[in-house]
Amino acid sequence: MTNPPAEISEILQGAKRVLLATHIYPDGDALGSQLALGRVLESLGKKVVLYGEEPVGHLYDFLPGCERIVTELPDLSTFDCAVAVDCADPHRLGRQRDRLLKVKPFIMIDHHAGHCPFGDVQWVDPGRSATGEMIYDLALALGGEIGYEAAYCLYTALVSDTGSFKYSSTSAKTLQVASDLVGRGVKPAEVAGRLFDNFTVNRLQLLRLVLESLEMFGNERIAVILATREMFNKTGTISADTENFINYPRSVSSVKVAAFIKESHDNVVSVSLRSKGRDVDVAEVAGAFGGGGHRNAAGFKLRDTDIGKVRAELLLRLEAMLDS
Amino acid sequence: MTNPPAEISEILQGAKRVLLATHIYPDGDALGSQLALGRVLESLGKKVVLYGEEPVGHLYDFLPGCERIVTELPDLSTFDCAVAVDCADPHRLGRQRDRLLKVKPFIMIDHHAGHCPFGDVQWVDPGRSATGEMIYDLALALGGEIGYEAAYCLYTALVSDTGSFKYSSTSAKTLQVASDLVGRGVKPAEVAGRLFDNFTVNRLQLLRLVLESLEMFGNERIAVILATREMFNKTGTISADTENFINYPRSVSSVKVAAFIKESHDNVVSVSLRSKGRDVDVAEVAGAFGGGGHRNAAGFKLRDTDIGKVRAELLLRLEAMLDS
Repeated sequence: MTNPPAEISEILQGAKRVLLATHIYPDGDALGSQLALGRVLESLGKKVVLYGEEPVGHLYDFLPGCERIVTELPDLSTFDCAVAVDCADPHRLGRQRDRLLKVKPFIMIDHHAGHCPFGDVQWVDPGRSATGEMIYDLALALGGEIGYEAAYCLYTALVSDTGSFKYSSTSAKTLQVASDLVGRGVKPAEVAGRLFDNFTVNRLQLLRLVLESLEMFGNERIAVILATREMFNKTGTISADTENFINYPRSVSSVKVAAFIKESHDNVVSVSLRSKGRDVDVAEVAGAFGGGGHRNAAGFKLRDTDIGKVRAELLLRLEAMLDS
Repeated sequence: MTNPPAEISEILQGAKRVLLATHIYPDGDALGSQLALGRVLESLGKKVVLYGEEPVGHLYDFLPGCERIVTELPDLSTFDCAVAVDCADPHRLGRQRDRLLKVKPFIMIDHHAGHCPFGDVQWVDPGRSATGEMIYDLALALGGEIGYEAAYCLYTALVSDTGSFKYSSTSAKTLQVASDLVGRGVKPAEVAGRLFDNFTVNRLQLLRLVLESLEMFGNERIAVILATREMFNKTGTISADTENFINYPRSVSSVKVAAFIKESHDNVVSVSLRSKGRDVDVAEVAGAFGGGGHRNAAGFKLRDTDIGKVRAELLLRLEAMLDS
């Protein structure tokens, strides 16, 4: 585990106006880290602008301050530096990445193992459970204030990226940071309720249909579930309603690799992959289809194809990997 | 939050042979606390006998040392004291409760809010997330060793009784204890995998059928799911396979109270109830049917009845409570 580089603290201490960005389709860690760092910098008297390509969706709009994220690129010449948090790859900065990266110095803070370096100053620590854990340490290093709202955002970041402290990335440090944040007033049940008790009846009906599609292969070591356009239409749900569904096939004890194949739009098929242990590197599988990710969690997206074709090609590759 | 009473430490320090018991149908907190306290006392040179009415079931048989729990009552005259952990009520000690309670002094350590006092010396702290959190403090007070196995059992106790740190009982202290236990070598993903990734394909099929039964009442504030004998037979599953199913209706954001009605044996119907916030006290509802529990989690069991009748009577009561 690494500490915040002194260079990053010095740049931020010296800056008056800071631009904060994160990756597209931001999750709880991305938004929580961005919002918390914003508050910490403001507690030190900095002016902060939070940028995101799209408005925050309904899954994360409970995060305090998320309405302050602007979707219009501000005048970039006015900033003394920019920070991108939780962004594993410059492409994930979105359509405006080339313009964003012109802000100098551009600081990158990320915890992804497969991080692809970009920007001017980097702090990448794959030993961290979440970028939020790094922002917590940076806040302390800067001498900034972690008030209730920042603590709430950081706690959400940790819970979101560790599946509520269930993933292997959860360390003694993660839990110690979580303990400190709860000591600052965050209510764990409140955050967990927002992140996990956000089902609708329609979403439960969709889950039922998706579970009905479950198929097992390779001596019950491979589990595949599907979500078709028909299922979305029938239940009045959208692609985002399938969040965490991949955990169901993954939770079968015999399963080494789980796949969730979904028709995210007409003619677009997205695949989420999860593996357990060291048997299957799903980043490699996803890579073969033009996607990417981590060893145990990866995904890819294909256009102009159909779900049956993707399923067949994926199965061939997964079975070959398990047999090799 | 209270500290371990000096009296309990003194009794245990002075004892040579200690009997350790917990409640019937033990969960992760019950077994984890019992097993961990056993190891801590052994590290202090005590002889320990672990008693349980039934052998440990397949859900918790991963706990190190669980094979040492004896189901035959040992010669009770040989013990200097007994400790019951996590047991809210003397009846929950099981069929041998009268004989067990003759061991003097009988120490009671529990965290349940509705604890019904029994035994000679009590430490009841409803401010604790789990009895395991209390055993951790007791271990430190005794100067006992918390080795890897004890830490593993205590971590399981915490995760099990907080739903992986999601429930409102989770405090800064809970997370600090968890952090310390992980520092002793416990791997969070390993414990979470054992507790939560223990699905079988049959169990997922059962979940699908149970989700199909979902009904909503009272402006989507009441959610009811059912598990019938037919569903168990069709999927080759048993009552224990429904663990955590109640969380699905509970997770619907509009829901204030969720019920899971199941035919646990022929002519026996068990009902699990969960509520959110302060609107419905499900312990009161369960009490009206001869059951009990906490404000937000309770249950009851009825014999010689059928699932439809229970459903109708329960709904009447829940609707009346929400309207009052």
